[in-house]
Amino acid sequence: MASSTDPSGPVHPIDGVRLAAGASGLRYRGRNDVALIEVPPGGRTACLFTTNRFCAAPVTVARAHLGECRPRYLVVNAGNANAGTGKQGEADARQVCAAIAEAAGCAATEVLPFSTGVIGARMNPAPIEAIVPALLEALSADAWEDAAGAILTTDTRSKLRSRDVPCGAATYHVTGFAKGSGMIKPDMATMLAYVATDAPLDEACLQAVARRAADESFNCITVDGDTSTNDAFVLIASGDLAGAPIVDDADSRYAAVAAAVADVCRGLAQDIVRDGEGATHFVTLRVRGGESREDCRRVAYTVAESPLVKTALFAADPNWGRILAAIGRAGLERLDIARVCIAIGGHDIVRDGEPVPGYDEREIAAAMAETDVDIDIVLGGGPAAAEVWTCDLSYEYVKINAEYRS
Amino acid sequence: MASSTDPSGPVHPIDGVRLAAGASGLRYRGRNDVALIEVPPGGRTACLFTTNRFCAAPVTVARAHLGECRPRYLVVNAGNANAGTGKQGEADARQVCAAIAEAAGCAATEVLPFSTGVIGARMNPAPIEAIVPALLEALSADAWEDAAGAILTTDTRSKLRSRDVPCGAATYHVTGFAKGSGMIKPDMATMLAYVATDAPLDEACLQAVARRAADESFNCITVDGDTSTNDAFVLIASGDLAGAPIVDDADSRYAAVAAAVADVCRGLAQDIVRDGEGATHFVTLRVRGGESREDCRRVAYTVAESPLVKTALFAADPNWGRILAAIGRAGLERLDIARVCIAIGGHDIVRDGEPVPGYDEREIAAAMAETDVDIDIVLGGGPAAAEVWTCDLSYEYVKINAEYRS
Repeated sequence: MASSTDPSGPVHPIDGVRLAAGASGLRYRGRNDVALIEVPPGGRTACLFTTNRFCAAPVTVARAHLGECRPRYLVVNAGNANAGTGKQGEADARQVCAAIAEAAGCAATEVLPFSTGVIGARMNPAPIEAIVPALLEALSADAWEDAAGAILTTDTRSKLRSRDVPCGAATYHVTGFAKGSGMIKPDMATMLAYVATDAPLDEACLQAVARRAADESFNCITVDGDTSTNDAFVLIASGDLAGAPIVDDADSRYAAVAAAVADVCRGLAQDIVRDGEGATHFVTLRVRGGESREDCRRVAYTVAESPLVKTALFAADPNWGRILAAIGRAGLERLDIARVCIAIGGHDIVRDGEPVPGYDEREIAAAMAETDVDIDIVLGGGPAAAEVWTCDLSYEYVKINAEYRS
Repeated sequence: MASSTDPSGPVHPIDGVRLAAGASGLRYRGRNDVALIEVPPGGRTACLFTTNRFCAAPVTVARAHLGECRPRYLVVNAGNANAGTGKQGEADARQVCAAIAEAAGCAATEVLPFSTGVIGARMNPAPIEAIVPALLEALSADAWEDAAGAILTTDTRSKLRSRDVPCGAATYHVTGFAKGSGMIKPDMATMLAYVATDAPLDEACLQAVARRAADESFNCITVDGDTSTNDAFVLIASGDLAGAPIVDDADSRYAAVAAAVADVCRGLAQDIVRDGEGATHFVTLRVRGGESREDCRRVAYTVAESPLVKTALFAADPNWGRILAAIGRAGLERLDIARVCIAIGGHDIVRDGEPVPGYDEREIAAAMAETDVDIDIVLGGGPAAAEVWTCDLSYEYVKINAEYRS
């Protein structure tokens, strides 16, 4: 399941997709904080949003706009989430859309707004409106890195992934970026992520590819179990449908493109966990032998979100009793504890519900001291499996979240 | 719902119940680590255990013993939880029971074992066996404080509560102690707590009183959302049934005794939260206006366990957006966000889903700087309510749990 994209590899432009970044000064000084993405005429987008019932104003507005027409512009600001801001927040988000629409000569409903940052403070639209002409002027097919940097908040680095997709005679490309570091537990949607491909996927196909990619990437991660009010994942397909469009999964190109999109998303999702607030370890939790994928995911998330497991990971302490206790409280109806096995870093530590005689704790502590830590859990003889990526809980997480805003 | 017991008040002995504490040296040096509680002949006990599927060996043994006969002795050791120790762990727990039975002249099934401490290490029974004669010798009606001190682990102080229950001509008493500081989210049972009353409750009544008391106390707290493998709450009734026993809730004394037991348990539960690992604030979360108590509890626990809310509480930062986001992801089927209200320290901050115009953030920050912080959440117009007690998440929590064991 590891991603094959190389974050330091070339960033492929996506035909027809242009980007720009600008500094509005809305909250931050001396850095870009607004990204604009242009979708070419005829381009398709699939959008997945947060499942949090308190969705932010831009999410409400974006959903409404999507019901009207195909988007031509995505505008993203960092520093203020415009969430918990009521009707005023929706009006502010609409005002940003209207400003872009007026300058670009499209309908306001063709613009989708996205925001990330502090929740509960009014987002003044004026600073964003002020830089709209400059943003439109700066639009470029090569501004992926600028856009990726402009949407960061507590992130310490950009998340940008790109790869090509050889498909017979053609070569397609997938490029995308994301942000996210805390309040991370996407659920059927994700933090902010924008991925584009030049493959000629039609609208229905694009939705299916987006859902599968989210399911295998952003929906497999957790930093702190907190689901944001602003999560959104947008997949753009710019490839011309006039030639030989990909309309369903019977097309031999479908699998290759879907796998490449999922791969880019997995890379971005893992980038987010690696940049988790205060994270010192990247932890892969593999659970198998469950009766259903849901059971396996429940166990994986209970372990991944246990503060006791997370602090033991921070300390590289093979305190597997905490893993076992978390499995036990995961709420599985039929869990046969006499079949549970746990391995850390490939070293068996619990077999059939009991400690493995004579296991070498120093070996396991050494495996936990690595940056990347694998935890394998077997529940029983069931057919299902799930994988979740998380990070540890450090002093730094507390510091970041006690000090953010102040 | 605050407790009326005074932790510094007199500790009432309970007729027929005797206690002792001793130092086995099993894990700690220079402190008591074993408590023995003697139940008088004819005394009744109600026992509630953890719902964690990985229950510890002593829980398995205690459950089996309770199926055989009424307990005469409870033995509790601190430092080793004897959990995740398989068949060997059960044999070790049984050996401790057998040693007490032999010395006290009762059946081994009349002894219930309890353990708390590190999970996953074998518990050597020999040091405990070695001090059994001294423990039996030391049994006293006045050793409540010694027993309360002997069962602590990462706790920084004892939890001991006592009160009298005027019932017409009679005055009954309720006295109990508990331990717990981390891995605290009891579920239908609790961490370790032992409470006794001299009221003449019969066995069925005692069970009902114990369940109600747990439901209103230990089942309303969370420190870190982690449910222990060893949780147990034991309620002992020593009052003679030969006179005028309390056999059901039609007895006018029933309500008074049940309320007093719940009151003592609530005091102990709050003591545990106040002594939560690294806690700097005691937080009362009141949720009302839900359609069911379960809905209200789900919201309360989601807020109480959000690492982002907990770190904001640590920082005394009125970052109410994090509370709102947690409410939104609590999984309620029918949540009308336009009706949600939030108040902190009695100051309204969100009304009908929107920020209250002109609320004074400094006032709220001042309320959050107090040791005790109240958060009130209104979901809508429903009839249900729930209350949960929790603490903040500090550097110290990470330190304690990254360093425990090492």
